[in-house]
Formats: sequence, structure tokens, C-alpha cells
Amino acid sequence: MLDAPRAATGCLAGVRILDLTQFEAGPSCTEALAWLGAEVVKVENPKGGDPGRTAFRGGEVGQDSWYFLLFNANKKSITLNLKSPRGIALVTELARKADVFIENFAPGAIERLGLGYDAIRKINPGIIYAQVKGFGTGSPFEENLAFDMIAQACGGIMSVSGDADRPPVKPGATLGDTGTGMLMAISILGALYRRKGTGQGERLEVAMQDAMLQYIRVCFATQAATGRPAGRAGAKLYASGNPPCGIYPCAPGGPNDYVYIYTSRANPAHWKRLLHVIGREDLVGDPRYETGQARTAHEAEIDEMISAWTRQRDKHEAMRILGAAGIPAGAVLDTAELHGDPTFEKRGIMQTIEHPTCGPFKMPAWPVRHDGAPPKLRPAPTLGEHNDDVLGAWLGLGEDDVKELRHEGVI
Amino acid sequence: MLDAPRAATGCLAGVRILDLTQFEAGPSCTEALAWLGAEVVKVENPKGGDPGRTAFRGGEVGQDSWYFLLFNANKKSITLNLKSPRGIALVTELARKADVFIENFAPGAIERLGLGYDAIRKINPGIIYAQVKGFGTGSPFEENLAFDMIAQACGGIMSVSGDADRPPVKPGATLGDTGTGMLMAISILGALYRRKGTGQGERLEVAMQDAMLQYIRVCFATQAATGRPAGRAGAKLYASGNPPCGIYPCAPGGPNDYVYIYTSRANPAHWKRLLHVIGREDLVGDPRYETGQARTAHEAEIDEMISAWTRQRDKHEAMRILGAAGIPAGAVLDTAELHGDPTFEKRGIMQTIEHPTCGPFKMPAWPVRHDGAPPKLRPAPTLGEHNDDVLGAWLGLGEDDVKELRHEGVI
Repeated sequence: MLDAPRAATGCLAGVRILDLTQFEAGPSCTEALAWLGAEVVKVENPKGGDPGRTAFRGGEVGQDSWYFLLFNANKKSITLNLKSPRGIALVTELARKADVFIENFAPGAIERLGLGYDAIRKINPGIIYAQVKGFGTGSPFEENLAFDMIAQACGGIMSVSGDADRPPVKPGATLGDTGTGMLMAISILGALYRRKGTGQGERLEVAMQDAMLQYIRVCFATQAATGRPAGRAGAKLYASGNPPCGIYPCAPGGPNDYVYIYTSRANPAHWKRLLHVIGREDLVGDPRYETGQARTAHEAEIDEMISAWTRQRDKHEAMRILGAAGIPAGAVLDTAELHGDPTFEKRGIMQTIEHPTCGPFKMPAWPVRHDGAPPKLRPAPTLGEHNDDVLGAWLGLGEDDVKELRHEGVI
Repeated sequence: MLDAPRAATGCLAGVRILDLTQFEAGPSCTEALAWLGAEVVKVENPKGGDPGRTAFRGGEVGQDSWYFLLFNANKKSITLNLKSPRGIALVTELARKADVFIENFAPGAIERLGLGYDAIRKINPGIIYAQVKGFGTGSPFEENLAFDMIAQACGGIMSVSGDADRPPVKPGATLGDTGTGMLMAISILGALYRRKGTGQGERLEVAMQDAMLQYIRVCFATQAATGRPAGRAGAKLYASGNPPCGIYPCAPGGPNDYVYIYTSRANPAHWKRLLHVIGREDLVGDPRYETGQARTAHEAEIDEMISAWTRQRDKHEAMRILGAAGIPAGAVLDTAELHGDPTFEKRGIMQTIEHPTCGPFKMPAWPVRHDGAPPKLRPAPTLGEHNDDVLGAWLGLGEDDVKELRHEGVI
């Protein structure tokens, strides 16, 4: 089923992406495009490549890191020394043949290499030229360095994450990186769609700080309604709660033994169903709990009566019983539980790659199913694995040319 | 600049999207497509419309909520009573003319309406048919209800967010909703790209639980490296920290008066620069702090010496000084600070809409700049605002036809 001819991997067939990105914000973007079938050619430093290959841990010293494998599946890799004039000449020739050029170097670096927008547009007016930055052009911080956590701090994410009585936390989700990469992928695809009809190129730029606003827009609604900055509420909803809405402790009491329970304001049946499940039919119709407003006034009692029920079960059982009764509920699952859950593998949401040097590695795939299945994963490339392939197919270089480039340290 | 003819809003010109989604996961997806120029027609219940219009607070009772305004900009709205046979007949006719059909009703609802994939494909074989679900087809929970927080619990996000000594928290970012919507937008755009060449339709499905894995892939790398489920580390990095890496307290000590400071493993210069900034040049070269490993062993001392410096400044000053010195640093900004920052408005990242009944509202726009500017915001539609427009342009109905439909309660 994963190889069905109509599946995802044919969507962008024939699209060529010249990918000068590293770490995660850029690579997560181009990986999504690779999963949809684009030919993504990663241009890497011959000495070590993308620092993401080694800046994080892998199975053994010297192997590519798990981090690299996760963000570079289904891509090709070529090596080019961008400190040599021939390396720059080659990357320029590749840019002439590309549909998309993308980079996420530190501010100003791509221009210093002579590969800025004006230079590339001159040789390829139809290019879609995409840049991921920490802070936007025109921001007082446009020259500053940024990483995922800096974006989460400056983009508002941290201010609305954590407990009310504690300092802010940085969510484990890498919104600054992957969250930004997904938005850039959308804009690139929009630009590709137009270009397919008109040949028109486009310059795209996203800043990690700016991208964060896209994910906390509910907090701006809260602020508009309350007149105050949105705050933190632990596992609950800040300023729009309607008890029960939060996590309840389950057996055996480990760090993630909780079940999330929510009864929607839009559907009063949820609360009644919940009373039945926890054996408190006696409270159906009781005015102390009948409306969302009334329940808000009795939040502590409600939390205690539900906890009395959840504490007697593990989170999986609690979720099964509550879910089957039509109550929105979800166990707090950890990465090991998700990794080990056979339904993810069966549905293709988790797939195992066979990497030539790192061996088998089970990892999340693109989660959108196209005609019934996510795209099939291919392992991330080894450094320079596709030098012959790409220099041949894109530039017409032969085996001897490539051998010479290797000999001269250009690739 | 925002109206430049080459800007974003032309990317998807001519693309027709029939949008049966509500609340956030679906609407955030179609809004991104509307921002890139697609004609997104929201189909709403004549009695109240998308529950997101009223389930959250607006400026005044009876007005559309701020929440609705945020997730439905640049769309059109038509009303259709899907409980009437003529309403169903009309939505079917619209589906015949659409490029994309998208829905996020509760499990099974769209099929019960007779608008399932097989029915729509029969009348429009080239349709891109997209569904957002809580849990994936084939999951043991595929019939369960889900909301943003349920997805964040079941999709691993909460297990890696919060303090190590406390229960998990739900990040303020609505990853379950908008995070899922962004992935579906990418797949729809990929399918549209192929369809433009081949006319080929496609069935797309994403589950909110599955989509969460895309945002915590670094945690799966951590798990592969440590053999344990990824955990929580407050504002720090779990299992890959290299002090300093976290938030440091600033004056005057409010709930968000912190600055994030990080010195990258990949660049040893960051640490040296930081010592200069905080006036501890005496420690440059000191073996207690020279390597990442050494600093890990002295984390508490390092945190204290940096805090001694940050406590004497406000977060903005700290960020300015550290950033200018080439150290990755970012103030923890809250929603009011972001909302009030003039650079967001100047750069088009925040724009003010003039809504006919809600008045002016300043809100985040699509953060990717196309040829220098984000797309220009148009206010979310009032309920049924485009009945005449769409029923006329898509189906050729005249003024009298529309009047009759209104009279009969179909629209």
C-alpha cells in the first residue's frame, strides 16, 4: 500500500530544490517537500557536512546522528567546498537548473558567498529563492543569531507555557525550528503552483520569531477579550476553561500517568456522560454543576471527584472507557509509548529505515495520508552520496570530471 | 508594498476550495490557502454558522469572536442548511465545481450527510478531498472525539513540556489544531501541484494525534540516544543541555521578566563573548568552564554568575547587549509586548483589519514574506456574506433563485 503509484511521493515529481540549509528549520521544510516527491539536493561542506550530522548523538561515535536522520530523509546529498571559487561556480550552475533555492545560514552569510538573491535571480529569473532567518529584515534584531529556543522566547510561546506560579517553560516541541519550516514549505508550494503556470519566480523570507505568532493566535484572542497579556495555566486552558478541563492522575502514578479530560462548552452532553461514567448519576441536573459557569465556581470539587475515579485506573483504561462513552479524553503518552505503539507502524505513521551505516531506525514519517498511506521513507543520505548522480544529471559532468573535482578538494 | 502585484495573494489564483471546517484545525489550514490567493468558500449552518463564531469571546455579545476573526481572514462565507435535501444538493453541486473539498466534522458525520469521499469523487473525479480527524483511520481510537488538548496529550507534546518535578503542561501554542492544519495545507498544496499538470484527484487525511509527532522529532532522537522516554526540563533542553542554556531572571522580576541565553556547542566563541559581556574576563580559559562537558559539571555556578548580571537589567536591555555581542539571546516576550511592538506592524507581520461589525482588530498575518511583504489581510466574512456572489459565480444562480433559497430556509 505504501508504494501505491498515486501516493504522495509523486506530487512534486520533477521539482528540483537546491538545499543549502542545516540543522532543523530549513531541513524540516525541504524534507516535507522531499516526502511529496521533490528532488531535494542538500549541498554540504565536504569536511563533515551539515553540522546536524555530528552536533547531536547517534548510535556510535562517527555515525550520523539520529537528529540528522530524522530531518533529512528522502533527500540527496552532494558535497561542495563553498570556500573555493570552483565550488561557488558549481553551486551557481546548479542554481541555474533549480526551481527552488533555500538557505538558513547566519545573517549575511549567503550574500558574502556571492549567492544572495540578486546574484541568483540574475542567472535564473524564475527561481523561488527562500530564506529562513531568526529575526525578520527590518527588525531591530535582524543581525542577531537565533536558535529554536530563542525564537520560542521572543515569539511569545514561552510566556504562555508552564505553570502560573513558576517561570515560563520551553515546550519540548521544536516550534522555532520545525514550526517555522512548515510555514516556509507552504509558501514555497504556493509559489511553485503559480510558477508552474507562469514561470514567475519569487523571493520568500520567514523569520523564526515571526513564525511563532502563527501558533499562539488563540492567545491573542484571549488578550483581546481580557485586555491583559495571555498567561500560563499548566495543563488547563488559560482564561477560557470550563471544568473539567485538564489532566487527572492515574495509577500507578508515574511522571506521565495522567489522562486529559475535557467537556466542551458547545456540547452539554459531555458532562452528563462523564457523571455516568464516574458513577455520579446522582449529580445529573444538580444546579451546582449544570452550566459551565456553575462548574467554574466548583472547580476544585469537580477535579477531586474525577480524580477519585481516575486514580483507580491506569491512563490507557481511563482513556478507553471515557472515549467509548463519547467524552473527549486522552492519555498523556510519552515518546517510548508512541514509539512502541504498533498502530503507528501499521498505519505507516512510524516507519523503519535501513540506513547503510546506522542500521535500522524507526522514525515518524510525514503524517498526512495520501490515498490511504503516508509517503514511504527513504533513509537520509550519507555525505556526498549523490555527487555523481546530481553533477551528472543536472550539469552533465562525467565520471572523470567528478573524479577531478574530488581530487582537487572541491567536492 | 503590501499590495505589490507579485505578492503572495496571487499564488493560488483561480483555486476553488469548498471549506466545511470549523473551529481551528481545518480553518487554520484553509486560511493559509486563502492568504496565498485561493478562493476559500466557507459553508456554514444558517443558524449561527461555525461554532467558533460564538464559542469564544468577542468585543460584544452577539459579535463574531476574536477567535473566529483570527482563523477565517480572507475567506468567503455562504450559508447552507445541510439538514435539508436542497442544502445537500447545493453543496454537492458546489463540490462538482471545486478543486479542493475539506472537512473536520466529528467521525462519521460527513458520510452520514452523503458527502463522503466516494460520493464526491463520483461527481468530481479530480477532487482533492481532505479530512482532518482526531485519531487516524485504523487507530483503536478512530471513533473518539478530539480537541487540541487531547491531541497534545496523546501525541506526546505534553509529556515533554513542563518542569521535571511537576506534572506535564499543555503549551499555550495550539499545536493540535494549527499544528495539524499546517501539515494538511502542505499536502493539499502538493496535491494541487500535481493536479495542475494531470487533473489527478487525491484523498488526504491527517489525524491530530499523528500530526503531533512531526513537532517532537528531536525528542525521538533523544530517546534513541538515551534509551529512555524523553522527559521535561522546564526552560532548558532535555538531555542535550550545555550550560548556559535556559532563562535568566531580569529586573523588575515580573512573570515574564527573563532572558534566554544559549552558548552553542558548535561555536565555542559564544561562551568567551559571554564572559566578556558579564565582566568575567578573568574566567576566559579557566578549565572549569572551558568545554561544554566542564560547564555541565559547574551548571549551578554558571547559572548564578549569569543571573547576577541579568538581575541588574531588564530583559530588553539584556537582549540588546547580548545579541549585539554575538551571543544567542532572547527576551521572553508576552502577547501584549508582541502586540504593541511597532516593528511587527511596520513589517506587515501584524495588520489591522476593519471588520464591518467588530470594528478594527490588529492581528498576526501570514508571517512568510513574498517579495518583501506578507499577504494583505482581509477581514473574516460575516455569516453568509457571499451567498449571492458564490451561488452566482459557481452555480449560475440569479438574484431571484437566491431570494427563494433564503425564503425557504435553505441558506
